[in-house]
Amino acid sequence: MFLSKLDSLKDALKLIENNQKVMDYEEIPLKDAHKRVLAEDIISFHDSPPFDKSAMDGFALKGVNTFGASQSNPKHLKIVDSIGAGDFCDKTIGENEAIVIATGSPVPEGADAVLMKEYTTTQGDELTIYSQVTPGENVSPKAEDISKGDVVLSKNTFIRYQEMGLIASAGYNTVKVFKKPKVKVIITGNELVEPTKEEISKAKIINSNQYTIGSMLEDCGVIFDICHVKDSFEEVKEAILESLEEYDVIMTTGGTAISKGDVVLDVVGDIGEILFHGVSIRPGKPIGAGIANDKMIFTFSGQPVAAMSQFDIFARKYLFNMQGRDFNFHIVQRESLLKIPSQLGRTDFIRAFSDDDFARHVLNRGSGIIRSMVEANSYIIIDENDEGYQKGDIVDVVFFDSLIW
Amino acid sequence: MFLSKLDSLKDALKLIENNQKVMDYEEIPLKDAHKRVLAEDIISFHDSPPFDKSAMDGFALKGVNTFGASQSNPKHLKIVDSIGAGDFCDKTIGENEAIVIATGSPVPEGADAVLMKEYTTTQGDELTIYSQVTPGENVSPKAEDISKGDVVLSKNTFIRYQEMGLIASAGYNTVKVFKKPKVKVIITGNELVEPTKEEISKAKIINSNQYTIGSMLEDCGVIFDICHVKDSFEEVKEAILESLEEYDVIMTTGGTAISKGDVVLDVVGDIGEILFHGVSIRPGKPIGAGIANDKMIFTFSGQPVAAMSQFDIFARKYLFNMQGRDFNFHIVQRESLLKIPSQLGRTDFIRAFSDDDFARHVLNRGSGIIRSMVEANSYIIIDENDEGYQKGDIVDVVFFDSLIW
Repeated sequence: MFLSKLDSLKDALKLIENNQKVMDYEEIPLKDAHKRVLAEDIISFHDSPPFDKSAMDGFALKGVNTFGASQSNPKHLKIVDSIGAGDFCDKTIGENEAIVIATGSPVPEGADAVLMKEYTTTQGDELTIYSQVTPGENVSPKAEDISKGDVVLSKNTFIRYQEMGLIASAGYNTVKVFKKPKVKVIITGNELVEPTKEEISKAKIINSNQYTIGSMLEDCGVIFDICHVKDSFEEVKEAILESLEEYDVIMTTGGTAISKGDVVLDVVGDIGEILFHGVSIRPGKPIGAGIANDKMIFTFSGQPVAAMSQFDIFARKYLFNMQGRDFNFHIVQRESLLKIPSQLGRTDFIRAFSDDDFARHVLNRGSGIIRSMVEANSYIIIDENDEGYQKGDIVDVVFFDSLIW
Repeated sequence: MFLSKLDSLKDALKLIENNQKVMDYEEIPLKDAHKRVLAEDIISFHDSPPFDKSAMDGFALKGVNTFGASQSNPKHLKIVDSIGAGDFCDKTIGENEAIVIATGSPVPEGADAVLMKEYTTTQGDELTIYSQVTPGENVSPKAEDISKGDVVLSKNTFIRYQEMGLIASAGYNTVKVFKKPKVKVIITGNELVEPTKEEISKAKIINSNQYTIGSMLEDCGVIFDICHVKDSFEEVKEAILESLEEYDVIMTTGGTAISKGDVVLDVVGDIGEILFHGVSIRPGKPIGAGIANDKMIFTFSGQPVAAMSQFDIFARKYLFNMQGRDFNFHIVQRESLLKIPSQLGRTDFIRAFSDDDFARHVLNRGSGIIRSMVEANSYIIIDENDEGYQKGDIVDVVFFDSLIW
């Protein structure tokens, strides 16, 4: 049964925030760290590059020896050695001397610039140059990227591909990251059957939530398992109690309302504490959440669209924060192409198709109509203090893409 | 050696497009299909919902029997049965009769509306109602989401979580998707060593490209393996020839320039055809591409930032299109917070940190400075026909997030 009065969205979110858990860390090979979150500062063990590095293929030399050289006034230098990639030359370059050098190789002592091969010709050890370079040109100075001892990344940084490169350059081949939460999804409903091309028995419905919720969890970087139980107090209780042993978060779908067979919240109340049940939002009003064994239980609707919206509104931030990653809706402004009615005191998350300028909400949007989510790429959010918008009004939009890990 | 003249970006991209391959399809379990691309139309085997479904917990009844009911003028009906979720009731509702019904259950014959439990009281089989409902209210009509025979999704659709739900509802527990390409990454360079906290030998550099390129490939939904070979014509040739047997695409880093030990393009020319080498872009000029054994070979720079940009500019679209997915840069406009010089005839991809209004390019941007990619979240793209921008000008921006699978 709904608690006597619907909670406001703000109050419900606060109750979840107050019960936020953060995962412990683990040390993993760097190659597995992409899209994880740092649980330590990365302090470089090296200068990068570790030496003055040639940025071009050509000749290492003293820039001053090239001054005045041009196509019409070539100058002549002497080639005294050659350095391939990965090699080191301990010669010191003297006046009017040059060394053949490859991109990435250390510029030898005495040289301060690299002249590109394109501007030269050679005959034996005689180098003819047709262009000048200033000292420092085509040389990446030692430590120009990072210096030994620098904090190059902070704890709680999300590791994209570029951070992977930086962590490697800093000398880490293992890295401490926040553990992935293990989430158990318990799909309730006597009426649910697996997808089949055969005719479905009377009163049965295909279990689509297992696929949507599972995929949303993949988009949150977590580990998860899914099971399906009947609408029985005992079965739901057993499934939740068992899951509380092994998993960090429990999610259920179905059984959140008040009729015969809707038992999930009764179970949560029996084994733990209900934080809230029923929030003034649309879609997704029957959302509930509770705590048992010090773990969060989200109880989503059985209606597919309601369940997806509830996941976006209540669970994403919790799962991101558990892994040490910040998360807030990235709200942008768009012009509404249609009039949107709403109701004071209720926050609406209206499925919409939006582009760089406009938002057009999907018209057919019962909370069971999955097609409405498929046609959408965003929510228009209407605050509880707004009664809706006219065509042409500027509205708040959150793109689905911005919700993904 | 660079081919005599740098190709324009447009010409180089056209050469890649002309050699675009598309993967064959495979049939996989639906549960594994998230973030894959449909290789078939999805035609529904079912109506969804498969029956007139109650959208609320309450009482199924004839709407007309409730007309006029209110708090001050309650009406009385007779409860003749009860339907739990997943159950079916073959009774036909008569005048002033009602059946207890759960969300998701089929509305029985004779009933056309559901009155929410909140507006009722019961005593034995007597139902007292304090509100009226119109016919159709709180009922999700049969097939309101999808109808049997509807094409609900088309070939080439990217499967997000909501598409997963729709495909399940249509009755598919397996689905035909484009195969994932297998990509072999061959990192060349005598100078490269694995990340270590210990001091690194003279002239050696940590191999960071294996981590960045690997992670970028993860972001493109492909399968990949990485190896590291020396800058030897024979070693590179052997690695590429071996990879051509098993992989769909080859990528190399390093060895794309013209000095001693830079051999990758020589190998490509030896075993196949060079499409281009050297493109008028910054960073990333030494990019090359070729075809051998009818497979695409991308030859990226060894410089970390150049390699990342080359991947974004040349390889992402190819890998997306291989998997049946459309891809183009999503370009948005932002105000530049700084002056940006550029050069006519060259396309610049300038690392920048952009928000909803502004773009500020990263100042320290040598092609070896990984930190510059870490500080950035976007490219400012400067067309070859532009000479740069003044502070306050509107510039074209592509967010890194929009490049990801």
